[in-house]
Amino acid sequence: MLTLGCRDEVGVVARIAGAIGEMGGWIAEAAYHSDPETGWFFTRQVVRASSLPFGAAELRRRFAPVARQIGADAGWTVTDSADRKSVVLLVSRETHCLHDLLGRFSSGELPVRLAAVIGNHASLGPVARAHGAEFHHVAFPAAGGPRQDKDRAFAELRALVADHDPDAIVLARFMQIIPPELCAEWEGRAINIHHSFLPSFIGALPYHQAHARGVKLIGATCHYVTEHLDAGPIIEQDVIRVDHSDTAPEMVRRGRDIERLVLARGLRWHLEDRVLVHGNRTVVFR
Amino acid sequence: MLTLGCRDEVGVVARIAGAIGEMGGWIAEAAYHSDPETGWFFTRQVVRASSLPFGAAELRRRFAPVARQIGADAGWTVTDSADRKSVVLLVSRETHCLHDLLGRFSSGELPVRLAAVIGNHASLGPVARAHGAEFHHVAFPAAGGPRQDKDRAFAELRALVADHDPDAIVLARFMQIIPPELCAEWEGRAINIHHSFLPSFIGALPYHQAHARGVKLIGATCHYVTEHLDAGPIIEQDVIRVDHSDTAPEMVRRGRDIERLVLARGLRWHLEDRVLVHGNRTVVFR
Amino acid sequence: MLTLGCRDEVGVVARIAGAIGEMGGWIAEAAYHSDPETGWFFTRQVVRASSLPFGAAELRRRFAPVARQIGADAGWTVTDSADRKSVVLLVSRETHCLHDLLGRFSSGELPVRLAAVIGNHASLGPVARAHGAEFHHVAFPAAGGPRQDKDRAFAELRALVADHDPDAIVLARFMQIIPPELCAEWEGRAINIHHSFLPSFIGALPYHQAHARGVKLIGATCHYVTEHLDAGPIIEQDVIRVDHSDTAPEMVRRGRDIERLVLARGLRWHLEDRVLVHGNRTVVFR
Amino acid sequence: MLTLGCRDEVGVVARIAGAIGEMGGWIAEAAYHSDPETGWFFTRQVVRASSLPFGAAELRRRFAPVARQIGADAGWTVTDSADRKSVVLLVSRETHCLHDLLGRFSSGELPVRLAAVIGNHASLGPVARAHGAEFHHVAFPAAGGPRQDKDRAFAELRALVADHDPDAIVLARFMQIIPPELCAEWEGRAINIHHSFLPSFIGALPYHQAHARGVKLIGATCHYVTEHLDAGPIIEQDVIRVDHSDTAPEMVRRGRDIERLVLARGLRWHLEDRVLVHGNRTVVFR
Repeated sequence: MLTLGCRDEVGVVARIAGAIGEMGGWIAEAAYHSDPETGWFFTRQVVRASSLPFGAAELRRRFAPVARQIGADAGWTVTDSADRKSVVLLVSRETHCLHDLLGRFSSGELPVRLAAVIGNHASLGPVARAHGAEFHHVAFPAAGGPRQDKDRAFAELRALVADHDPDAIVLARFMQIIPPELCAEWEGRAINIHHSFLPSFIGALPYHQAHARGVKLIGATCHYVTEHLDAGPIIEQDVIRVDHSDTAPEMVRRGRDIERLVLARGLRWHLEDRVLVHGNRTVVFR
Repeated sequence: MLTLGCRDEVGVVARIAGAIGEMGGWIAEAAYHSDPETGWFFTRQVVRASSLPFGAAELRRRFAPVARQIGADAGWTVTDSADRKSVVLLVSRETHCLHDLLGRFSSGELPVRLAAVIGNHASLGPVARAHGAEFHHVAFPAAGGPRQDKDRAFAELRALVADHDPDAIVLARFMQIIPPELCAEWEGRAINIHHSFLPSFIGALPYHQAHARGVKLIGATCHYVTEHLDAGPIIEQDVIRVDHSDTAPEMVRRGRDIERLVLARGLRWHLEDRVLVHGNRTVVFR
Repeated sequence: MLTLGCRDEVGVVARIAGAIGEMGGWIAEAAYHSDPETGWFFTRQVVRASSLPFGAAELRRRFAPVARQIGADAGWTVTDSADRKSVVLLVSRETHCLHDLLGRFSSGELPVRLAAVIGNHASLGPVARAHGAEFHHVAFPAAGGPRQDKDRAFAELRALVADHDPDAIVLARFMQIIPPELCAEWEGRAINIHHSFLPSFIGALPYHQAHARGVKLIGATCHYVTEHLDAGPIIEQDVIRVDHSDTAPEMVRRGRDIERLVLARGLRWHLEDRVLVHGNRTVVFR
Repeated sequence: MLTLGCRDEVGVVARIAGAIGEMGGWIAEAAYHSDPETGWFFTRQVVRASSLPFGAAELRRRFAPVARQIGADAGWTVTDSADRKSVVLLVSRETHCLHDLLGRFSSGELPVRLAAVIGNHASLGPVARAHGAEFHHVAFPAAGGPRQDKDRAFAELRALVADHDPDAIVLARFMQIIPPELCAEWEGRAINIHHSFLPSFIGALPYHQAHARGVKLIGATCHYVTEHLDAGPIIEQDVIRVDHSDTAPEMVRRGRDIERLVLARGLRWHLEDRVLVHGNRTVVFR
């Protein structure tokens, strides 16, 4: 899988496709996006491994000059879809996204290596381990608790995540605001599920905000974590219909279905190198 | 059709159903909503006209004591669905909602009497008249134009609407901010279509705002007009999926489909007495 | 919770609401459906337990004469929502619906007592037991296997289910055609998830059928099991969009998301007494 | 705009992109589809006209040898999006799709040249003409009418359509079964809207069939007309939710919204050369 972003110009598609063709590469999937506003060009190409006489590392080496030529020096990747990516899940009290992802990993639907589950409630250990995952309990203080306890908990979390160096750090309803330096360290790898259709209802209790406003649809948003709360690049969103008979707690219950789906889709696309970030927006080649 | 809102209490359903039953009324449709948070009760009942030996006016007279007993003195209505409601449409340059509604009126799908179309561009006259509607041209000054011209235009608009005393005043992409005193005069009858999924992207150019934020769904909202811009009680909302390849103008084009539908549905429900307003929220008995 | 179906006539709502009101019952939710084609009437009423000086059994006893009067002798139920209903899950190789439901039970989202999981593959035992469920392995022969082995497996299954006498028997992608006598025994309790938008693509490999036809949406259907394959009363359906790039195996993968949701919703409504069967159709009071 | 289908092989993307690049063509949009089952390759490329020193005819001439080389001899097109395509609309009594399309043409949303409206009811003349379209009345006999009248009507219809030689012949709820020889003559240009989610409910009264089966969603399908009734390649489909309270006539009314949208979308994609037919399936590059 090759992904790439560069300034758009005449012949860029030909140069990329030409380079792959010369190596004998059979392009099984190819997606292109040319952004008229920014003048930027993005592509994702899936080359059949069997059509190349060498592996991903050699493809990467051979493609480097082409990338340089078209000015994509930094923003390109070559990965082998046979390499299972690793994931760390961060969870809190709400467990529906955790259960959903564990089920998807167990049934082989999301082809990842689950490196660890880190929760701030010890009770999730047995289920995590039943699915073959390492479990770590990191105790975060309650809201309003001592600052230093919180700092210590984040330091512990940071070290645990660093140990695994995962391809994705999933905040599966983690309910903690990640400090800026951790946002920076995890940039492009930390994925959050927010339980509203952003940019509506940022912050706490979004379903209660939605209920108070009397909206007729509620939603969920999967986005990369940045230091700006609930404002990072959006990967995926979806909504479901509610009506006057849905109380705020009922919205909480019904919203879980859409949170599960939106997070699972967003995570899959991230793991399959389908998401290219550009400024605060994403190109998602589905 | 009977609609009603009152404080909830034991036996209120029995009293209403009992009163209708004693008159011999056959309840063809009945919807109830009991709001646990506010302790308020709402209902909409459709009684078959043929099952009653009298008309809507007499039903209203006989039901009045029941309404008083259950404390619904003010908030109840009895209407005859055979009486066609009247509608005034306000339009500007964007005509897709106008065309859509005219088509629905012409084909008999929305059973209303179209009293008038009022536009601030004279060019729409022929189409409006081809569908049998009166057309009035009211010239609003461009944004930033002289205040007194705007005031004069609103005075003219107000008088024209007042002449028809319509059941619904539809701002079919009217693009003018209605002054507070007119909002008050039209309260509960003026329906706007806003081209975003409110409360996101209030005000001007919502599709451009949506594009800049990188959302993955765009929407439209049909709501009652109040003096607070785009903040009135929501009647209906819906969304469609967009992706990175949709530019802002493309979103404008694609959004029209959802604006048409959301406005047509919201207007229908309003005309069929399916919408009960309670504070800044609506009960919609679909 | 009271549910009821009877011939429609003047005053039936008043009689039911009157009877509940006289007992002092506070109606928290009430839904009615009057079917103009069949002349049949359906209702579901939720009475607050705290408003009654007695329990469900006494309510049932007191309501019986009313039910007789309005001709609902057989078709009515009174249940106590505090009584957790019991569920037996039947599974085969495809485990996504099993994992999804176990997650929902574990997190308390679907308030049921999971009586047992019965699978024709022993491998699911550990997961089922990790969620606190009894697991039984019943070995069904492969397709085309000896008739008597199949009969024996069904006899075993029947006995296991009978032991638990569950309120719902969920075929969570069970992949066996239930024999007519078992359909009869389980009538109104056995719920299947079929992986197509019925009535399209009945029987085997529906996603492959869908792919061959080139449809642009794929779906799933939750229905009661009857002796007619995939033809029982439909409880819930939903769809997701596919396109030309989705191969049949890709549709299989993507369809799982909609199967999970549709089964979970249908099962919830069944357990909350929201589904009333009439002929081969359902009234679903959501 | 270049569209093309050929056998897939190594280097095909490079050859196409290379040829365009050599001419100096700036690829503004590019979509590819490689079908693993049939081993077939499809592409649609939008080249900015301003980047080429010549027009579509010359591009076509220069591209011909490339098309031959990659074996796409027959199945490729080069068109100029500045050339407005022409459309003929066939209508009958149900006019919602007609009104919808006329509104879209009038507001410039669908950039076509409306060549003619042909209806079997004279009453639609004024509206068609108000939108600047030629109107022809062709009187089809009622169902069961004399065969020769029907043949004569079809002969007249065929001649009228042939006069305009349109890019699209839209059966906007035309309600006549097109004879095989006309299906052949109009192949790839005749687009029908069927009021069900095909392949469910082929033929007459699909909403009544849907109601009888008790489905929870109803749909519409836009497809190319072939001699097999409602079985041609599907371009677009969509659905909306219904429930037990929707009678068959109510489904008819509600279904119109989805018919309008599905036909408008399918027609747009056809006119923008986004639909490539392969066997009985379509590749739709949206």
